Amino acid sequence: MRNVKRAVLVKPGSPLEIWERPTPSASHGDVIVSVQMSGVCGTDHHLQSGDITLPNPMVLGHEAIGRIEELGSDVTTDSIGEPVAVGDVIYWQPAQPCYRCYACTVLEDVSMCPNLVTFQLHQHADEPPVGTYAEYAWLPERTAFFKVPADVPHEALIAFGCAMPTALHAINRAGGIGYGQHVVVQGSGPVGLAATLLAHLAGAGTVTVLGAPPNRLEMAGKLGATTTIDVTSTSEQERAAAVKEITNGRGADLIIEAAGRVPAFTEGLPLVAPDGTYVILGLWSAPGTSPVEPRYLNNHNIRVIGSAYTTPRHMYQTIQVTRTAHRRFPLAEMVTHRFSLDQAQDAIDAVGRGEPLKAVIVP
Amino acid sequence: MRNVKRAVLVKPGSPLEIWERPTPSASHGDVIVSVQMSGVCGTDHHLQSGDITLPNPMVLGHEAIGRIEELGSDVTTDSIGEPVAVGDVIYWQPAQPCYRCYACTVLEDVSMCPNLVTFQLHQHADEPPVGTYAEYAWLPERTAFFKVPADVPHEALIAFGCAMPTALHAINRAGGIGYGQHVVVQGSGPVGLAATLLAHLAGAGTVTVLGAPPNRLEMAGKLGATTTIDVTSTSEQERAAAVKEITNGRGADLIIEAAGRVPAFTEGLPLVAPDGTYVILGLWSAPGTSPVEPRYLNNHNIRVIGSAYTTPRHMYQTIQVTRTAHRRFPLAEMVTHRFSLDQAQDAIDAVGRGEPLKAVIVP
Amino acid sequence: MRNVKRAVLVKPGSPLEIWERPTPSASHGDVIVSVQMSGVCGTDHHLQSGDITLPNPMVLGHEAIGRIEELGSDVTTDSIGEPVAVGDVIYWQPAQPCYRCYACTVLEDVSMCPNLVTFQLHQHADEPPVGTYAEYAWLPERTAFFKVPADVPHEALIAFGCAMPTALHAINRAGGIGYGQHVVVQGSGPVGLAATLLAHLAGAGTVTVLGAPPNRLEMAGKLGATTTIDVTSTSEQERAAAVKEITNGRGADLIIEAAGRVPAFTEGLPLVAPDGTYVILGLWSAPGTSPVEPRYLNNHNIRVIGSAYTTPRHMYQTIQVTRTAHRRFPLAEMVTHRFSLDQAQDAIDAVGRGEPLKAVIVP
Amino acid sequence: MRNVKRAVLVKPGSPLEIWERPTPSASHGDVIVSVQMSGVCGTDHHLQSGDITLPNPMVLGHEAIGRIEELGSDVTTDSIGEPVAVGDVIYWQPAQPCYRCYACTVLEDVSMCPNLVTFQLHQHADEPPVGTYAEYAWLPERTAFFKVPADVPHEALIAFGCAMPTALHAINRAGGIGYGQHVVVQGSGPVGLAATLLAHLAGAGTVTVLGAPPNRLEMAGKLGATTTIDVTSTSEQERAAAVKEITNGRGADLIIEAAGRVPAFTEGLPLVAPDGTYVILGLWSAPGTSPVEPRYLNNHNIRVIGSAYTTPRHMYQTIQVTRTAHRRFPLAEMVTHRFSLDQAQDAIDAVGRGEPLKAVIVP
Repeated sequence: MRNVKRAVLVKPGSPLEIWERPTPSASHGDVIVSVQMSGVCGTDHHLQSGDITLPNPMVLGHEAIGRIEELGSDVTTDSIGEPVAVGDVIYWQPAQPCYRCYACTVLEDVSMCPNLVTFQLHQHADEPPVGTYAEYAWLPERTAFFKVPADVPHEALIAFGCAMPTALHAINRAGGIGYGQHVVVQGSGPVGLAATLLAHLAGAGTVTVLGAPPNRLEMAGKLGATTTIDVTSTSEQERAAAVKEITNGRGADLIIEAAGRVPAFTEGLPLVAPDGTYVILGLWSAPGTSPVEPRYLNNHNIRVIGSAYTTPRHMYQTIQVTRTAHRRFPLAEMVTHRFSLDQAQDAIDAVGRGEPLKAVIVP
Repeated sequence: MRNVKRAVLVKPGSPLEIWERPTPSASHGDVIVSVQMSGVCGTDHHLQSGDITLPNPMVLGHEAIGRIEELGSDVTTDSIGEPVAVGDVIYWQPAQPCYRCYACTVLEDVSMCPNLVTFQLHQHADEPPVGTYAEYAWLPERTAFFKVPADVPHEALIAFGCAMPTALHAINRAGGIGYGQHVVVQGSGPVGLAATLLAHLAGAGTVTVLGAPPNRLEMAGKLGATTTIDVTSTSEQERAAAVKEITNGRGADLIIEAAGRVPAFTEGLPLVAPDGTYVILGLWSAPGTSPVEPRYLNNHNIRVIGSAYTTPRHMYQTIQVTRTAHRRFPLAEMVTHRFSLDQAQDAIDAVGRGEPLKAVIVP
Repeated sequence: MRNVKRAVLVKPGSPLEIWERPTPSASHGDVIVSVQMSGVCGTDHHLQSGDITLPNPMVLGHEAIGRIEELGSDVTTDSIGEPVAVGDVIYWQPAQPCYRCYACTVLEDVSMCPNLVTFQLHQHADEPPVGTYAEYAWLPERTAFFKVPADVPHEALIAFGCAMPTALHAINRAGGIGYGQHVVVQGSGPVGLAATLLAHLAGAGTVTVLGAPPNRLEMAGKLGATTTIDVTSTSEQERAAAVKEITNGRGADLIIEAAGRVPAFTEGLPLVAPDGTYVILGLWSAPGTSPVEPRYLNNHNIRVIGSAYTTPRHMYQTIQVTRTAHRRFPLAEMVTHRFSLDQAQDAIDAVGRGEPLKAVIVP
Repeated sequence: MRNVKRAVLVKPGSPLEIWERPTPSASHGDVIVSVQMSGVCGTDHHLQSGDITLPNPMVLGHEAIGRIEELGSDVTTDSIGEPVAVGDVIYWQPAQPCYRCYACTVLEDVSMCPNLVTFQLHQHADEPPVGTYAEYAWLPERTAFFKVPADVPHEALIAFGCAMPTALHAINRAGGIGYGQHVVVQGSGPVGLAATLLAHLAGAGTVTVLGAPPNRLEMAGKLGATTTIDVTSTSEQERAAAVKEITNGRGADLIIEAAGRVPAFTEGLPLVAPDGTYVILGLWSAPGTSPVEPRYLNNHNIRVIGSAYTTPRHMYQTIQVTRTAHRRFPLAEMVTHRFSLDQAQDAIDAVGRGEPLKAVIVP
């Protein structure tokens, strides 16, 4: 039994509370880690503000790096079969596919598993915290986790928290990015910046980022954007004209929506080139409709691809990409704000104001 | 010089006129055929009614079987390299890609060639008729054409005129149809019926056709539909319930839009299963928008695929499919109405009233 | 505790023995079934003859239909999430992926899981029988199993035992079969016959089966083969000439190796058309090399695809395909020989002599 | 009529001769360029030595940058539809697909066009030179050519002559390179170095180059190789051990054969990881066989992909990749040797001795 401190969202709208509760040891397939660094995701802000509602009270936090403190008796390796021991540093997907449903078995797509438990669903804040705004976090059976190699700086990895796995999943669903292609990224939060880096790494010819504010666009430039356009100081027409000019009048081969706003979809779809692709990955929590002309999609051979969440495979790839990319790109500079666990509310407030490139909590 | 009779659309709204004009011989890359059988496509009706406007006067008709009467001096083979001679029966795509544009060269997708001349664009009705409502038709250089094997009945081939190549293109763009998949086809005109047959031939588990009137749905059943639903006597809710039941509550793995009406798109999109695909191929001439919720596509990993026109490859495949399928399916029964060239207007009127499964003109 | 009868291979070369052992109840994730019908696979013959060696003594049998007798406390659904109860009839993959290795997690390919336990590895014949030559069989945790719908005849399903899932896996790895393609199947055992049916169901233009003896080739014809060639009465040159003729001199678009003999590979590779594919799926236990000229593969854009075992997805698809196909094809006629459990040795002997299309044991 | 100087291979084994012949103007679909820089390819050396035999006498040279001097009356744009004029600098594929064969039409793969005229086949050295070891070169109708943007240094582009298009074609056929994958490149000539750069640009995790001599391996390092191994000073066992170590014991996800030697294939195939891919692209002219065990491919889900020549699409992509990559990589440094047209024989001799990274002729 450990006394474990955690930041709890008691109900939407009220400030986070710090609770301390006795917590039992790991059993069977469980792993208990001490949280080294927890990312603060925009979703956490949405959960507190009530834009997204889940059962409360809950422990926030779903992206973290942890040090193994206890291993259940059944756990001898990580999810790629590497032996693990107490003291190893790991990265994990805070979701457990059931491997016993149509999606897991027939579609071979755990991201559509209806039994996937994400964002600490069904977990009461008194229980061992799955959420990572905590001193210790509990990884239940079937949690995909991976050892973090010693040459991967923690800041570089947490910089893109759940953002890079999500972007990897989306790019994979879109069929990858071809050499020399014209890519447009809508949005310059962590997901947009991850997509920017990934487009650059895949050999895109141009990567145009439509976002704000200037410090994020500046980082986009460091991660491979060839053009950045501030959406707060340009009109939709100006952005469309810019994309047309960059693409020799043809439009973008691939547009990655990471803006999380329906008007971005409405604006972006007409910017796709014939035979091009529009990937939606940031709109999972944004309600509302956009008027789509099916004739336009029909006559230009356009593909629109939705992409939800991520999969264990993309968590692993995130580590691999970070391991190489941090040597050439200032990934760790993404982490502009650090907070203690007691300051968790300040962290969320800062993210809500859009100040950090990436904020982390170091319990 | 031949005197060649042709049915001419002088302007939208006015009845077809039969013109007779002297027409020169084939030169270089040209082929001249005597039209054996020309399909009457719904597009012909739209052109006459003015729903679609192209330069006039024009000779209608863009799907036909012909007998080679003259070969230009440069033409010794068909488009797969088989030797050809006067007297051979051929099938062709009435469009000539330029092979000198971004689409032809880089996208390797001639269906997006901006220089593709379709529907007799730029051709005056006095000139040698590219359109196939004529005694003789003229295939300009770079027209893809194929010998029709002797064991392919002409009615079976013309039954799906430009419809089967279009459906083949769309199914190919969608990545094919998997064994046991649940397919829904919206529309039961020639394109919908071609898609029905192709879904069955690909090993789909169920093929549900939403269409009308009863004689078309009856033919859908003969071509492999496992369920047909008359859209004129059912509500949208009833159809949605039926699809859910057929698919064990999951929705369709693949929906093929061949209805040509925007409300079909609006109705069909929510019927796609997670990780499923919606293909738009019938909406190339239908204006209007549909309110799409991008969140829905995002969270269900849904793909929407536009597919325009067809390619020479799919013309060839159409012959191959017909060659095999006509032995097991009553393809020739599709041709329910036959007209002489002088009756071309009657043919279009019949199609406008939706009477034939397929009407043909035999010049 | 049940007393359970089972057929045991004590050591290669010696006849099967019938053992009876007390066997405990299901616990947690286990399922116990009464075996309704067990397929006799060529592999069983190879195991007894010692061509393949695994730890002994073992209970043979790895393809079966069973009736649920006991459900472990954790098991409430089958592998697609359908509720299950005692009395339900099921079909299963006798192998359990670990979901904790590089293959399961990153490659998303459980067929390459190094921890996959197949063919009753590590299981002693005294233990609850995983092997299906038994009155009751034990499905350990993580065994993929599926309810068999009431409208699927058991003989039609067991007819292709592990053969159809294996063929589905291979065809999937090859990228599917296109409309009108020329397919050659080498071998006419259950795997070859399954591939024949699947090629036909996918819309292949021609399906040429190279095999023996005549009764198998006759069945190939009933399952969709357009040409069958007896390998015992033709020369390699004659077969090559036949394939060239059938394919207009181009060679096969897809060749599926299901012969299990290295010379078949040597013979078949040169029969692939430019841009064509050769799939190897039957050579998993056949040692030996074939002289391959890499220049030939290079200059003809040829793909050679290995495919091992199967996955839960393909087990499910097998049920779906059978459910539809048994109405049009005499699948149940494949089961030409039936044996009791006591006659298990006779069953293997018959298979060794190549007499049955498919033999089954009905305990 | 121009008097045009050209370097002629009169017969294998004899030194190149410089001929000067009067040459007519461009007509219709032709383009005449003044050659600015012609790459010297290893194939040119093979042609002279007689390793490869083609009709003689011929003008050597098949990769070049030229300045348009004359445009045939039908030529107004390059192959992506950009307007062209005398004085424009272009890059072209010295081969003309027929667009009238099974490969061009049905396979949509011009690299398999049996009528593709490459390496100046059928051309007599007296005729207008298609070969580029000449003051002027003649591009016949249907030659794919592309304007070279002003910001693409000529040396950077010719550095990978026909090598990068060939590598792009192969990587495309292999399905691309995934983020973080382990890639092995066999060979460090221009094709191997192009593959090295492309693997790096695609986001490979490691790129291991097996080649020689040291100056080429040094360049491989500058182009993105993470490990280089000199094949002249290591054993096959040492190289296999190195690859196993780099890939955590699993083997390479992708091996690209660019060595042009059959023993490389024999050595490389066992280094592929389960579910991995071996691409053959350098063995188009190397006779001989390698003993392949089909069981090995079968049981490890291995794919072997042949890839021949290139396509116009990949010529265009080469320009796009160069345009971006030359800013980050010392592509122009590849051009280590320059020769005049009169020194063409010296150029070939130098290439035969393996001295240059890349030699060019500047007429």
